[in-house]
Amino acid sequence: MTEKKDFQLSCPIPISEYPHVLLAHGGGGRLMHQLLEKIIVPAFSNEALEARHDGAVLNLQNTRLAFTTDSYVVKPLFFPGGDIGTLAVYGTVNDLAMCGARPLYLSVGFILEEGLPMETFWKVVQSIRKAAETAGVQIVTGDTKVVDHGKGDGIFVNTAGIGIIERNINISPAGVKVGDAVILSGDIGRHGMAIMAAREGLAFESTIESDCAPLSEPVMNLLAAGIEIRCLRDLTRGGLASALVEIAETSKCHIEIEETAIPVQENVQGACEILGLDPLYVANEGRMVVFVRAADAEKALALLRAHPCGAQATIIGHVHQAPASMVTMKSRIGASRIVDMISGEQLPRIC
Amino acid sequence: MTEKKDFQLSCPIPISEYPHVLLAHGGGGRLMHQLLEKIIVPAFSNEALEARHDGAVLNLQNTRLAFTTDSYVVKPLFFPGGDIGTLAVYGTVNDLAMCGARPLYLSVGFILEEGLPMETFWKVVQSIRKAAETAGVQIVTGDTKVVDHGKGDGIFVNTAGIGIIERNINISPAGVKVGDAVILSGDIGRHGMAIMAAREGLAFESTIESDCAPLSEPVMNLLAAGIEIRCLRDLTRGGLASALVEIAETSKCHIEIEETAIPVQENVQGACEILGLDPLYVANEGRMVVFVRAADAEKALALLRAHPCGAQATIIGHVHQAPASMVTMKSRIGASRIVDMISGEQLPRIC
Repeated sequence: MTEKKDFQLSCPIPISEYPHVLLAHGGGGRLMHQLLEKIIVPAFSNEALEARHDGAVLNLQNTRLAFTTDSYVVKPLFFPGGDIGTLAVYGTVNDLAMCGARPLYLSVGFILEEGLPMETFWKVVQSIRKAAETAGVQIVTGDTKVVDHGKGDGIFVNTAGIGIIERNINISPAGVKVGDAVILSGDIGRHGMAIMAAREGLAFESTIESDCAPLSEPVMNLLAAGIEIRCLRDLTRGGLASALVEIAETSKCHIEIEETAIPVQENVQGACEILGLDPLYVANEGRMVVFVRAADAEKALALLRAHPCGAQATIIGHVHQAPASMVTMKSRIGASRIVDMISGEQLPRIC
Repeated sequence: MTEKKDFQLSCPIPISEYPHVLLAHGGGGRLMHQLLEKIIVPAFSNEALEARHDGAVLNLQNTRLAFTTDSYVVKPLFFPGGDIGTLAVYGTVNDLAMCGARPLYLSVGFILEEGLPMETFWKVVQSIRKAAETAGVQIVTGDTKVVDHGKGDGIFVNTAGIGIIERNINISPAGVKVGDAVILSGDIGRHGMAIMAAREGLAFESTIESDCAPLSEPVMNLLAAGIEIRCLRDLTRGGLASALVEIAETSKCHIEIEETAIPVQENVQGACEILGLDPLYVANEGRMVVFVRAADAEKALALLRAHPCGAQATIIGHVHQAPASMVTMKSRIGASRIVDMISGEQLPRIC
């Protein structure tokens, strides 16, 4: 344990700046990072946490484990392509997969609001069961709490997960190196737009379905083929842009991507244009970026495309030395612009 | 995996019976058991879950792990003797300890309500840090979500925990045997009454402080001394009574306890009498029952008493064959009565 005697004696986010928690503090953007960097990481300082990974990598006796958690507060509970139960399983499975771990065991914690229809609870439990079967994980422990009507919002679900890292690998944002290729596993923005359409009652020409899916199989396939994965990151809150900015900042590299290479489904593009949203920042729940050595890129791409979750995988960019800690994007017309993180998120409570 | 083809096609709790989730469904009593037995356990059927333990015991390569989770929704967030952060750490540490595991790693998931004072969040994080240090565990991964104002209640915290089972032990309710002694590690009812006093603004002659504390050290001490622990259970929702009834039902034994042997602090007894509550059902957060062979009982008692958390440890009863699956209590005046589980809990949201 590190020395804790001189620990901060007052809240490091001054009242004059942010007296209260805002929705944006949970949004995956700058404000959430401030909360993490100023309050959470300093309090719990340890190696695993400081790796800024999707999950913690732990050595127990001779076993290497990944351990991760996420709470799910998505609104509405059911949406085209999934529901809070599906998300709660795949989200945590994906966080484990992003550590290169084979997901094995999940815990489930429910916070139910008094008055929730029993049928709704049952349906969510069935979704969790199906998603766990699909992803090949077991729900081995759990907890249920009920809060007064008006003090919750139907159902909140927390899942924590344990996976096993079977190979001598080291996948982390810090492992990204100059020259690496950046592969995106499929089209972006579908999950966020599916939620928005469901929540706002928007009808587009065709229904936008969430992309939520477990990414563990495609990752295991890459590892089994001996691809040296430098870094993996699934795209959730904050979308592709936030994922890349985080990786650029941790690795101190420059990531350059090409706008024309990024697949966006036509109805998602259309909906984004109508609503003035940038698909780069819209959440996914079944997409990832994979950083590999340039020499491995084509092989990795072929492996990803062989799996239904990666059918549209594509190389969207490369890693350079400078300008350090930055993401830039070459636009359709050839101009280059800086891709930054937004403060909050375009849409709260998408997962 | 077990066969799932014939899985239930409609909610097994009929609408005519419980159309909605009630507060009592989270209360640790009969209704929560119905929710578990009818909806949750059948959905996720597997060996670990069916053991009905405080945590799952998992074999990973050659390592035996315990894995557990709990969400914390206590109201108010701060109370004499602790707060939601302390509870969230000690509660999960205790669930691991009840499997005979040495608690090592915790995850923390926050669900914050928009508008929560930043200072309050910071204080809870500091409590978690201190409690983790006291219990000797590391917070290695986490998550923060924010829900709209009016859709949460300040802070909800989920913790999941991983512990290691270092010895070839098998601690579980099913391990209880006729002849075993039942040891209670200290006085009961303090946590629940501390919460009730804080919530209702009740002033008793002396402040009732929660007993919340980590139980891992006393458990490790028993194991290190070679005591064969048959079963461990910490007393939380539903109190001593519910813990014993659960164990009697799982082990199919008769547990007989003596009312006069159960320590209850005077101000707790007084407050219970004023409010018409039975301390047997009032929650604790730093107390456990320990089932050991009668021959080990005195040695175990001495070891427990040597630790501050077990200073008042006492033998409260024994295990008999019949009447099976039942708990009875000899009262002060010598009469014997059946100790049953209540439907919900006397007091919602105590943890």
